[in-house]
Amino acid sequence: MTGSPASYLSLDIGGTKCAASVVTGDGVVLAGSRIPTRATEGPQAVLARIAGAARAVMARAGAPIARAGISVGGPLDPITGTVDRPPNLPGWDRVPLRALIADAIGLPPDAVAVENDANASALAEHRFGAARGLRHVVFLTMSTGIGAGVILDGRIHRGASAGAGEVGHQVLLPGGPPCGCGARGCFEALASGAAIARRLREDWDAIPASLRALCGGREAASARHVVEAARGGDAWSRGLLEEIACWTARGLAHVVFTLNPERIILGTIAFHAGALILDPIERDLRAHIWPSLAQPLSVVATPLGPRLEALSGLAAALEAENPDNGNAGCPPPTTPP
Amino acid sequence: MTGSPASYLSLDIGGTKCAASVVTGDGVVLAGSRIPTRATEGPQAVLARIAGAARAVMARAGAPIARAGISVGGPLDPITGTVDRPPNLPGWDRVPLRALIADAIGLPPDAVAVENDANASALAEHRFGAARGLRHVVFLTMSTGIGAGVILDGRIHRGASAGAGEVGHQVLLPGGPPCGCGARGCFEALASGAAIARRLREDWDAIPASLRALCGGREAASARHVVEAARGGDAWSRGLLEEIACWTARGLAHVVFTLNPERIILGTIAFHAGALILDPIERDLRAHIWPSLAQPLSVVATPLGPRLEALSGLAAALEAENPDNGNAGCPPPTTPP
Repeated sequence: MTGSPASYLSLDIGGTKCAASVVTGDGVVLAGSRIPTRATEGPQAVLARIAGAARAVMARAGAPIARAGISVGGPLDPITGTVDRPPNLPGWDRVPLRALIADAIGLPPDAVAVENDANASALAEHRFGAARGLRHVVFLTMSTGIGAGVILDGRIHRGASAGAGEVGHQVLLPGGPPCGCGARGCFEALASGAAIARRLREDWDAIPASLRALCGGREAASARHVVEAARGGDAWSRGLLEEIACWTARGLAHVVFTLNPERIILGTIAFHAGALILDPIERDLRAHIWPSLAQPLSVVATPLGPRLEALSGLAAALEAENPDNGNAGCPPPTTPP
Repeated sequence: MTGSPASYLSLDIGGTKCAASVVTGDGVVLAGSRIPTRATEGPQAVLARIAGAARAVMARAGAPIARAGISVGGPLDPITGTVDRPPNLPGWDRVPLRALIADAIGLPPDAVAVENDANASALAEHRFGAARGLRHVVFLTMSTGIGAGVILDGRIHRGASAGAGEVGHQVLLPGGPPCGCGARGCFEALASGAAIARRLREDWDAIPASLRALCGGREAASARHVVEAARGGDAWSRGLLEEIACWTARGLAHVVFTLNPERIILGTIAFHAGALILDPIERDLRAHIWPSLAQPLSVVATPLGPRLEALSGLAAALEAENPDNGNAGCPPPTTPP
């Protein structure tokens, strides 16, 4: 075939914001836009906005779209492309996301892949980021929610019903704060971006005035304000990040005892907070696990940063096109068979 | 080749007892013996007894031994066959188990496979038991210690340093009872056979007189006495099994959120206690996990029972001989790719 290389539509549907991008197969973003999710308005309104954003970036990029990939919170069925009550998207009861988006952008449904956001990010790291060439890698989302994308032996592990990697719903503190999933004390309820925002609102009157000013109001307060204040030296914010790191290390310790990965890649919050959260996570994690598990393990923040929101949908689309591509760069095993 | 089919030496080294068996490749036990571990006597004494038992069963079976497989608690390195400080075998610091056993029984070291006990049991279930033909299965040992053998996509998952499946060391109760690994409140410290024995000793003066009589003394009290009493209707023992089931369900919930298996196979204690522990484990587990994870999942006790102690070492030997055999019976994927 001649002509320009294939372009892909990538959609990233998060609990707080959504992104639509047109991307080449090697990860160059041709056009992109970002809109707030406003999840409380329900799936119909959210999906109409996403479809509008998708059509707009497709028009701006002007390139023909070969396939689309959607990164969204689970539970979902990647075969049917149906999303069913993800904790971060209230009211999304059995939403046939693939069919709706395919229809809205004029692609056949089998050219649209729907992938759990953590899996899509792990696939993006395996193709473009910190998991390249590695066999056993866990990508941990650290945004509104917490989930893991698990790559074992160079392949994504989805499990019996595409529900693997929901590590954010292990209970770390029985009777702890309520979680979007209905349980209490989940890893996600203790250490996610939503948990940070909840702590800001709860402690609003006690937090430093400078942090209150940065947030611009109690209801607008979010994890990124805490990260920004912490980077500027705010002690309360640094303390909160240490606490988040402590819970994150506990949740990750369970994952390491179960999977013994060679690398853990941490998402959004770790990318923005850097050593302020990476160092205590790694210190606490190594204190919890055995030397035999700690020795082969490295813990890093995603090197892809905000590019993940375009690359995760792209990786989902590429994986659906050719599931084995992601292994091409894997060296032969150097660890016990 | 003509003549009789190959025979294998199988060794199972546990924290409480050890077994030596000569087994055919299809799982027929030609000779077997069982000895107490007496782990406090240290590795040299324990290994001398095991070597003696191995030579005795080999002499009794009279068949030439093709290979040997050893099932033992991790951490261990299956490449070098070195065991390094398993929580249930105090004093086993970097013990070159493979070399020592190969020397003691007159086989070349590369004919002796050393495998984590939970992995060896999972491999045995995959070849001979409740994991035949399945893709994603977790075998949970429920004996002196707690560990998991993880089969994903029909293959054993060992991880980056052969440490995967150590799910017994996830902390379920921060600050809880001390664990052999040095931490507190581990799954293993709350729900293992050793935990049951500890509870018996702690509550000795409060437990029913009939149970005390059954145990034959405080120091001899063990999980099997509680299971026997529970089967006979003892309310205290049934209550303790319910409590053990509650912790087991919590530990397994984390494993299910991470791996989304289609089957969990429970070891020794579940085999002996049957519905008395299986029912509350399954009830509590299903209450903790999501419907999408519960739907494809079945929870069963090992159908192999005491045969596991011969079949686990055999499966380790067969796996070393031909790592792909275990997949031969796997049907093509019927779940999301």
